[in-house]
Amino acid sequence: MAAALKVGVAGLGTVGAAVVRILGERRDTLAASAGRPIHVTAVSARNRNRERKIDLGNVRWHDDPVSLAADDNVDLVVELIGGAEGPARDTVEAALKAGKSVVTANKALLSAHGMALAELAEEKNVALAFEAAVGGGIPIIKTLREALPGSQLSRVSGILNGTCNFILTKMEEDGLDFDTALSQAQALGYAEADPTFDIGGFDTAHKLSILTSLAFGTKIDADAIYVEGIQTISRLDIAMADELGFRIKLLGVATRADGGIEQRVHPAMVPRSDPLAQVMGVTNAVQISGSASDITLIGPGAGGDPTASAVIADIVDVSRGMIRQPFGIPVAQLATPRRAPIQTHEGGYYIRLDVVDLPGTAAAIATRMAEQQISLESILQKKPRAKAPAAASDKNTVPLVLITHATSESAVRRALMAVLADGHIQGAPQVIRIEKEK
Amino acid sequence: MAAALKVGVAGLGTVGAAVVRILGERRDTLAASAGRPIHVTAVSARNRNRERKIDLGNVRWHDDPVSLAADDNVDLVVELIGGAEGPARDTVEAALKAGKSVVTANKALLSAHGMALAELAEEKNVALAFEAAVGGGIPIIKTLREALPGSQLSRVSGILNGTCNFILTKMEEDGLDFDTALSQAQALGYAEADPTFDIGGFDTAHKLSILTSLAFGTKIDADAIYVEGIQTISRLDIAMADELGFRIKLLGVATRADGGIEQRVHPAMVPRSDPLAQVMGVTNAVQISGSASDITLIGPGAGGDPTASAVIADIVDVSRGMIRQPFGIPVAQLATPRRAPIQTHEGGYYIRLDVVDLPGTAAAIATRMAEQQISLESILQKKPRAKAPAAASDKNTVPLVLITHATSESAVRRALMAVLADGHIQGAPQVIRIEKEK
Repeated sequence: MAAALKVGVAGLGTVGAAVVRILGERRDTLAASAGRPIHVTAVSARNRNRERKIDLGNVRWHDDPVSLAADDNVDLVVELIGGAEGPARDTVEAALKAGKSVVTANKALLSAHGMALAELAEEKNVALAFEAAVGGGIPIIKTLREALPGSQLSRVSGILNGTCNFILTKMEEDGLDFDTALSQAQALGYAEADPTFDIGGFDTAHKLSILTSLAFGTKIDADAIYVEGIQTISRLDIAMADELGFRIKLLGVATRADGGIEQRVHPAMVPRSDPLAQVMGVTNAVQISGSASDITLIGPGAGGDPTASAVIADIVDVSRGMIRQPFGIPVAQLATPRRAPIQTHEGGYYIRLDVVDLPGTAAAIATRMAEQQISLESILQKKPRAKAPAAASDKNTVPLVLITHATSESAVRRALMAVLADGHIQGAPQVIRIEKEK
Repeated sequence: MAAALKVGVAGLGTVGAAVVRILGERRDTLAASAGRPIHVTAVSARNRNRERKIDLGNVRWHDDPVSLAADDNVDLVVELIGGAEGPARDTVEAALKAGKSVVTANKALLSAHGMALAELAEEKNVALAFEAAVGGGIPIIKTLREALPGSQLSRVSGILNGTCNFILTKMEEDGLDFDTALSQAQALGYAEADPTFDIGGFDTAHKLSILTSLAFGTKIDADAIYVEGIQTISRLDIAMADELGFRIKLLGVATRADGGIEQRVHPAMVPRSDPLAQVMGVTNAVQISGSASDITLIGPGAGGDPTASAVIADIVDVSRGMIRQPFGIPVAQLATPRRAPIQTHEGGYYIRLDVVDLPGTAAAIATRMAEQQISLESILQKKPRAKAPAAASDKNTVPLVLITHATSESAVRRALMAVLADGHIQGAPQVIRIEKEK
């Protein structure tokens, strides 16, 4: 059997500790899969004294992860520090420059610097592998990079953030409002003390930027992503969705159309019959549509063991010498995407307005829609029958919900500007895009 | 760019023609993915004159696929002939012996001779790749072989035959009986004139034998698979399943338990909330459960383009030199599985009996169950409210449905033998295993 692969693990949080533990527990099986033993020879973390329930007896400790990357006794660096800059970036760059393969779960780093890091990896002919960066235990990176070259992909979409899906699930199943559901997520460790990164859609956007690149053979273009979070979703929206046959999910969606690549992250009304609508709790899912086939992958989006499993799959690939360009083809061959801005998005819309309850208001609003050639599928002025509370900010308003046929984002925005100017509504309109099954 | 990979395609049915077509249509993209051009240089099929709508102008024709395998102008052989013996086997053996990589969709061949062929491939250090053999466009082989080394797998199960799932879907959605649904499947080209191979569960068994090997690191043991088809499923069973909160699906299931590896193919009662229950029509799906994560993959199980897409993914892997042992680890290291026979299976059961309608019959039957320590969750003697017809073979019988708590297959069989001996029922008992969510 070939010489052992010597692995250095930078970052010993839940995932890093699970990587070290599983590499030990499954030593023999992994050696068979990898064609050689895999040994953890070095680790690095901020706090040496934290109890991690793993044996680090024969492992060299580095206070500085960059020195771990330089350790002669390390062939491959696992970066689990996190963050787009600072030690994570320094460690990955140092490892690649030293001609060492890198396995990382760091979507923020890849979203910001993935192209430059991939070029560095290509130049050194080493791996920059990141199965764990998107979808935790779901093999979505390998699938997009290796499994679908015969299919011209047109769309990739998914539930990519377990925190948001947990909150939306709790709101629906237990009738909670957003803040209460968020508190529960925090209590269970699914959401950070500052949850902005998850609930604001930014984590999903990082992940989407990576999937878009792999799906369409384009350079990462994270700045082009339209991002909305789930903070404005109310119990009333959840109840209305239920009445209308939808579930609300925070989706990341990238589509390739004539106008270019459209990338967006926002809450969406998903028909209940769609597989994505049936994904509940912290589970993630990704749908890929292409000329040859449409597939859906479902699984745990986070967590120590699932994410560690993805890291280990990458380590085994490297140990076998299965080294590909990080984004499937050389970075130099990735196209620069034309951006299709959100204003050109076309689809159905759910629009909820708090309407001043005067005779003729609904008709006036409908007229504003008609002026923008927006065709309405339904108008619901009654309060929903579900247990939902009135969300109106004022006792003199009632919720009015419009469901549109396919129209453009810009038409919707123009119509709502006119409605706002008319003074018929209070507060901001709630606009949720409808994501129809193909 | 490196020299072109020269591909010979043996078998030009729907899939073979799609492979040739897509390799042409996506020539440039595939060259980028593959790191070199991929050229079809030779083909073979039984009928040279059939219209296939593909350009074979610069391609050498072989009447004999074995001579295609020997063609000096062929580096890699795609075998799409089908069948466990004869030309398919001869062609694959000839190619491997000549040191050429093989890509095949032939589950029957692999199920029967996969171990010997894999050893031959390993000896020659070439690929024997078969993503297209199971689950069409779903990357299930790559996932099991490469994506989950960090997870100790305990179970793989799935809907692996689109024909059966189409028939069961039609029976449920349109209230058809089995024969009518089968005729529709045949009219649409989803079922063969002789449908035994699909509806009898044998195709699913071939596929399951391959998945079992990959999931558990064991030698293929197709003879150990317990196989039942869907021919006995009646409209009444479908209606009862609906009433009880289940859907009936033909599943292939392999589990690793203390007693050994249990492999079985049979119709199963799947709770409607299970992702597998929501897979309708010709779509396939596979669930994988392991120590690190549980994932579900859904997609097209057959069809020209999806299957061709899987073939092409394998070709691209080979063209990049990504050659692994066919079953993930060397055949010599695959364990010989201990067989857990179906008699030791434990789970819930749906049992439908045509009962001679005499006072006390249900009680007598329940007593026979109790004698085998079988605990009943429910007994339904009424006819279902759905549109289902009486399935009883005699006007003097009524359907009696028993739902058991978890028990053993052997206990159920003993109890039913006693019930039959008592003369309380007409015809054979209908027994459908309940497949609970984990």
